[in-house]
Amino acid sequence: MTAVTPDVETAVLAICRSAKEASRALATATRATKDAALIEMAEALVAQAGRIVAANQEDIARGEASGMSAGLLDRLTLTDARIDQIAAALREVASLPDPVGEIRRGSTLPNGLRLVQKSVPLGVVGMIYEARPNVTVDAAGLALKSGNAAVLRGGSAAAKSNEAIVAVLQEALEAAGLPRDAVQSIDAYGREGATALMHARGLVDVLVPRGGRDLIQTVVRESTVPAIETGEGNCHVYVDATAPLERAVDIVLNSKTHRVGVCNAAETLLVHRDRAGDVLPAIMAALRGAGVTLHASGDAAASAPAGIATVPATEEDWATEYLSMDLAVKVVADIDEAIEHIRTYSTGHTEAIVSESYAAIERFTTSLDSAAIIVNASTRFTDGGQFGLGAELGISTQKLHARGPMGLGELTTTTWLVYGEGQTRA
Amino acid sequence: MTAVTPDVETAVLAICRSAKEASRALATATRATKDAALIEMAEALVAQAGRIVAANQEDIARGEASGMSAGLLDRLTLTDARIDQIAAALREVASLPDPVGEIRRGSTLPNGLRLVQKSVPLGVVGMIYEARPNVTVDAAGLALKSGNAAVLRGGSAAAKSNEAIVAVLQEALEAAGLPRDAVQSIDAYGREGATALMHARGLVDVLVPRGGRDLIQTVVRESTVPAIETGEGNCHVYVDATAPLERAVDIVLNSKTHRVGVCNAAETLLVHRDRAGDVLPAIMAALRGAGVTLHASGDAAASAPAGIATVPATEEDWATEYLSMDLAVKVVADIDEAIEHIRTYSTGHTEAIVSESYAAIERFTTSLDSAAIIVNASTRFTDGGQFGLGAELGISTQKLHARGPMGLGELTTTTWLVYGEGQTRA
Repeated sequence: MTAVTPDVETAVLAICRSAKEASRALATATRATKDAALIEMAEALVAQAGRIVAANQEDIARGEASGMSAGLLDRLTLTDARIDQIAAALREVASLPDPVGEIRRGSTLPNGLRLVQKSVPLGVVGMIYEARPNVTVDAAGLALKSGNAAVLRGGSAAAKSNEAIVAVLQEALEAAGLPRDAVQSIDAYGREGATALMHARGLVDVLVPRGGRDLIQTVVRESTVPAIETGEGNCHVYVDATAPLERAVDIVLNSKTHRVGVCNAAETLLVHRDRAGDVLPAIMAALRGAGVTLHASGDAAASAPAGIATVPATEEDWATEYLSMDLAVKVVADIDEAIEHIRTYSTGHTEAIVSESYAAIERFTTSLDSAAIIVNASTRFTDGGQFGLGAELGISTQKLHARGPMGLGELTTTTWLVYGEGQTRA
Repeated sequence: MTAVTPDVETAVLAICRSAKEASRALATATRATKDAALIEMAEALVAQAGRIVAANQEDIARGEASGMSAGLLDRLTLTDARIDQIAAALREVASLPDPVGEIRRGSTLPNGLRLVQKSVPLGVVGMIYEARPNVTVDAAGLALKSGNAAVLRGGSAAAKSNEAIVAVLQEALEAAGLPRDAVQSIDAYGREGATALMHARGLVDVLVPRGGRDLIQTVVRESTVPAIETGEGNCHVYVDATAPLERAVDIVLNSKTHRVGVCNAAETLLVHRDRAGDVLPAIMAALRGAGVTLHASGDAAASAPAGIATVPATEEDWATEYLSMDLAVKVVADIDEAIEHIRTYSTGHTEAIVSESYAAIERFTTSLDSAAIIVNASTRFTDGGQFGLGAELGISTQKLHARGPMGLGELTTTTWLVYGEGQTRA
């Protein structure tokens, strides 16, 4: 367990405690108040875009000096146009229904007690994420709408940007009559601060890590605060014996190449051996045409049409979330081998089947154990926005509490309210 | 982190792996098959009660020799009559609706994709509990009904009893055509086995500790498997200024004395100062009459009628879950002080208010952050059976996944099924 110096622990716990205090005001805030604060936040970000962009420039200069990759620099960069988009996302959150106060279940018991299960905020939501300053705003907005206070730990590479953003958001909260401590950053306390946050059980109600595998595994291992594992997606597409050729090509191409750096992109293609002679070569040609490197099993390599290059797949390829223009490809004897392969290597995010067989589809959808199972469509649809849930905080690949895209509802818990007239137990 | 010798780790992981394998058969088992297995298990327990009681006698002899308290010995003891009760509970679980396969949400998206959120088993449920052999059967039954495999770690004091019970249950599972590995014990591997179970992330989907504070805190601290905190109940009853005298006396007396060793028993009484002169003395007289020791604040002690003894409450009393015939008693200036006190000391289980004031009841029910809030009734109603949820695995005092009594539904997660006709993302 990482050691935390007492000063850092004291400072982070004080922040969590004031977040808990603020969460009490948020829990009973009306939708009108919360939406007004979200609009105020959106307006403040746009109005103070200059201040934020200036802070962001400092982070970028530091990133360039330390040799940050072009991709990471791009994710880090804020411009007026990007701030407009971030502000627009806050306005969208304001337009979503309030997830708090929903009656989930209820009944009158034989002894006359009236039972009501009502959704309530979780309390304090902790987020640990990497250097993407837009996440700071997204997380703050989703937490606020669901009546939660947020304690944020962004990547140190975005520290200046996050500091400026949080300051602007806090001013907006105050202007809207809500406590400024509803959104706080612990970036000033570095990695030790993150560790202190992971141990703030009792003050922080849930911790959501968002980022690469290492970050998520550290949180899972280290955190005594209940955490939600998000985002790792070793997603599969299985092309069944009955798959229509063109549909199979379209779905695999879209699943792999529509956007490669995301968790719902396909990473492995499994093809029924009956289609190794027609569908598989067509898919390989299309993928190579799009610039995808094919990591092929022996069988699969043998299916490659003339002039379509492959590289040999190793055991490691089956377990790899490439997040790049790479795809592992394997020929399977039947659907059972496909299911067994997926069970062995899947991270439980999304698996897709292309098939016309009712029996095969039934078997695939009932035998696998992933957050989303997609029939005859692209893996790229596993997404809160695509599912119509509104904004999402991340995609849960664990089974407790939330599974798949986490929207506002997943940032609530429930309370049982019991109304009686003096009932006692006999 | 507790060290685990490699042999123990290997053995426990092999058990978890075979449980995962068995969970796949359970996940697609029909309700008819699962219910038949539950009935078979109930019949086998009754038929082989002699074998189980004999094993239990060994545990009892060991317990007596080691000076186990009368209360613990009673919890440990199995008789033919108790085995009949345990078997009857299994038959009741068989009669409950199947929580698997329930459609929770669904819609057709603008692009024609059909979205269905369906309940599915969690997979492998780990239970760590103390020396109560009935929990072995309850946990196995609830897990089976909800399509989950169970890996059980009971207290070492009940090791022989649990060994016999698990053997009987496994024979019944096989007779019913289900895998015997659906219910397994790791008692043979002692504390190290429990630690190995806590680290079996990826094989075990949820860990439910059931027992005293130390056990639960160890699991929360040590487990990388997602755990559900259960059972600690520092429950409060607040008697408001408007409380009817007789109702207040009945509710406090029942909340404290109906059964003292349980998590939904009241541990602290808070009384509005306007009622320190009439309701409080009446409650104190009734509680003392029932044999309750009153740990009273200065104000509260001053309210005691002549001849009613109190002992001074210390800071520690407010935070204590006595689980005995003891109650902490305090006079508060108003409902705000009551709410602040509860926020400070509550474990988030159950709080009750006795009041005729609409405003006070609204304030109490919206300001507190506990699994159950009870208006004008006994705290003892926070219970899966009382709530009409059927059997319960425990009472969750955390906010993620399950809150309050955990019934069969809380042993499931969901999968998103997406049905398309070739849709890809633009």
